[in-house]
Amino acid sequence: MADDNTVFVGSKPPMNYVLAVITQFHNGAKKVYIKARGRAISRAVDVAEIVRNKFMSDLKIDNITTGTEELQGERGDKLNVSTMTITLEKESPKKK
Amino acid sequence: MADDNTVFVGSKPPMNYVLAVITQFHNGAKKVYIKARGRAISRAVDVAEIVRNKFMSDLKIDNITTGTEELQGERGDKLNVSTMTITLEKESPKKK
Repeated sequence: MADDNTVFVGSKPPMNYVLAVITQFHNGAKKVYIKARGRAISRAVDVAEIVRNKFMSDLKIDNITTGTEELQGERGDKLNVSTMTITLEKESPKKK
Repeated sequence: MADDNTVFVGSKPPMNYVLAVITQFHNGAKKVYIKARGRAISRAVDVAEIVRNKFMSDLKIDNITTGTEELQGERGDKLNVSTMTITLEKESPKKK
């Protein structure tokens, strides 16, 4: 389901996604995309903040983009749902 | 409560905040800051998307930033809550 370097945030506890992001970086990813839509967007921000503040201080937020997707409702009606992608990037180590 | 050019998104229906953003632009603002924290972050994204897609197509997202605030819990414990600021900017009119 997941593309390479992408973590889709859903309704599980944030720490599940935090670990998924950290695993991607430990596997050599230079950038990881955290994607969410609808109410999970708040959780995606939590995930990015937890990864950066508690686990990997050498990460920066490269970019945040938002969008709108049209979903088919249960009765054939159309629903708009917001989407967000947060791109985390490993900063190059600085020389002292 | 609101700073100039800033709309704080809380738990009301999104359209309330959409109208607040549009009003700021109609009063001459070049940039409007949409701020939210915790679960309201998803709603802030909805607000920005609705304003841009349905009402003011000459707006672009200038910047999105995230952060973490420490709150005092009810029992004196500390809670971290994510914050987000979306900056909407009026694009200069293009000549044809």
